Amino acid sequence: MNETKLLVVGSLAYDQVETPRRPAAWQLGGSATFISLAASHLVRTAVVGVVGKDFKQADLDLLVGKGVDISGIETAEGETFKWGGRYDAQLKERETLFTELGVFAQFSPKIPAALADAPYLFLGNCDPDLQLAVLDSMKGLRWVAADTMNLWINIKRESLLRLLGRVNALFLNDSEAELLTNEKNVVKAGHAIMAMGPSTVIIKRGEYGCVVISGDGVFALPALPLEQVEDPTGAGDSFAGGFMAHLASTGDLSPLGIRNAAAFGTVTASFCVEDFGPAPLARLDRATLDGRLKLFANMLSLPWGGCCR
Amino acid sequence: MNETKLLVVGSLAYDQVETPRRPAAWQLGGSATFISLAASHLVRTAVVGVVGKDFKQADLDLLVGKGVDISGIETAEGETFKWGGRYDAQLKERETLFTELGVFAQFSPKIPAALADAPYLFLGNCDPDLQLAVLDSMKGLRWVAADTMNLWINIKRESLLRLLGRVNALFLNDSEAELLTNEKNVVKAGHAIMAMGPSTVIIKRGEYGCVVISGDGVFALPALPLEQVEDPTGAGDSFAGGFMAHLASTGDLSPLGIRNAAAFGTVTASFCVEDFGPAPLARLDRATLDGRLKLFANMLSLPWGGCCR
Repeated sequence: MNETKLLVVGSLAYDQVETPRRPAAWQLGGSATFISLAASHLVRTAVVGVVGKDFKQADLDLLVGKGVDISGIETAEGETFKWGGRYDAQLKERETLFTELGVFAQFSPKIPAALADAPYLFLGNCDPDLQLAVLDSMKGLRWVAADTMNLWINIKRESLLRLLGRVNALFLNDSEAELLTNEKNVVKAGHAIMAMGPSTVIIKRGEYGCVVISGDGVFALPALPLEQVEDPTGAGDSFAGGFMAHLASTGDLSPLGIRNAAAFGTVTASFCVEDFGPAPLARLDRATLDGRLKLFANMLSLPWGGCCR
Repeated sequence: MNETKLLVVGSLAYDQVETPRRPAAWQLGGSATFISLAASHLVRTAVVGVVGKDFKQADLDLLVGKGVDISGIETAEGETFKWGGRYDAQLKERETLFTELGVFAQFSPKIPAALADAPYLFLGNCDPDLQLAVLDSMKGLRWVAADTMNLWINIKRESLLRLLGRVNALFLNDSEAELLTNEKNVVKAGHAIMAMGPSTVIIKRGEYGCVVISGDGVFALPALPLEQVEDPTGAGDSFAGGFMAHLASTGDLSPLGIRNAAAFGTVTASFCVEDFGPAPLARLDRATLDGRLKLFANMLSLPWGGCCR
């Protein structure tokens, strides 16, 4: 019996990140890295992905040390996926300086038998045909969410639409939602995406928080205002990881369960940006996370609402 | 005895507003218009401002109909302040097409004796030397907030700094905060402004909500996600009006009082953008406002916080 609650399929990478306060430097990256580390604080999480021969044992050990199941990480001949980017002065926009897909170019996710019955699945941003293939390998899924990006909306729209017909939720940002639906209003864009399949649409807005649209209504949460922001890389993935972990941990798929999952993801992501790469997630402990959750909930506790929900 | 709780000094204007869904059309505008209408749902509010001979009696009647004291509105020879602007497709950015100051160019606020002891004062965006002169006319102020803009930060910095030494709070947006402080991080910018005088700094972020920085900490609130957005004109002023009215109504200047005031302002502003000009604020009733307050509070009620605060 495998106790994995959440399976994450995505990239493992080395990023060369430059910010106004730090010259370019290499750090561990990839969507699966951030998602699984963020999720690891709540549930047993497994990763399916591919790395090259150059991937460091210490980086695998970092995942294992947080309880992440790495049995689905394949090592292939060639180089690990590498990405280089530079952030603007406000740490809001970033410019991609290079993308070297390496072994990720031939990535063909193989789900180990022991992981195929994980009830929760997160499909990190990659070719929607691969995301569809993963879905075909799973049995007994309870809830599945996917991430995507402009590239796939532009060049693989048909596959993406097939995918959307088979997932419970889509994570994307404002501009991707507009590109996908041609709707400029975020709520209308969310409803248009729901018409494509997902019952829940999660719009990520970086330092401004998120908006979630579903059949039960619409809600927004702010991000925590932070004085210390060093590196936004992986924040969206950390948000998704915390979100999925909370859902998988509570099993509560009700509107309140979804809302609380978004809040948990928001708080998890707030740690990610305070230092470079996944380091803050790796050193995060549950007491620190719980302390900031309480802070966040108190910040948003208003006198006109229902009580203790 | 005058029962005015909140005095608002600002502009009354006619705006020609163009959006992607509506050709340019004239509508009532001005900071004092939006602020006083927004505040009118909670407290007796008075306006000090100037209009030209062309200002319509019906527009004064609209204010009076909401209980606003217009005894401080002076009618001068000349034309009312006129502004023309065009919004982009997302209704986020706007381009100013013309500004005709008219009688506002010679605006010299005169505070009627009956209004000089109002305990709460909002200094709408105008020349900081005029804002300072208003302060000199007031007696017994309990709490005063000011708005400003890039123009004054650039050309009247010394006067603005004198003003900041004498107000409790400053309302401004992200880019104005950065211009004033040269700090790109919004929390750091808030602290830098606090060092100039105000104990509370309210950063307005449009559809993303607000961040408030004070000696008691930092909090953020999201805006309500709205499907129907027609015209953002006046939203920031409506937010400020609701904020000030809640503060004046409760008299609670504690951290929680400030936070609840920001929430009340957020909800008030959500009505403003749903239709053109101040019409939605003018037709808003207390039951509708209370209903959305409850919705907002429930949206933000998380299981990790304290209860019923």
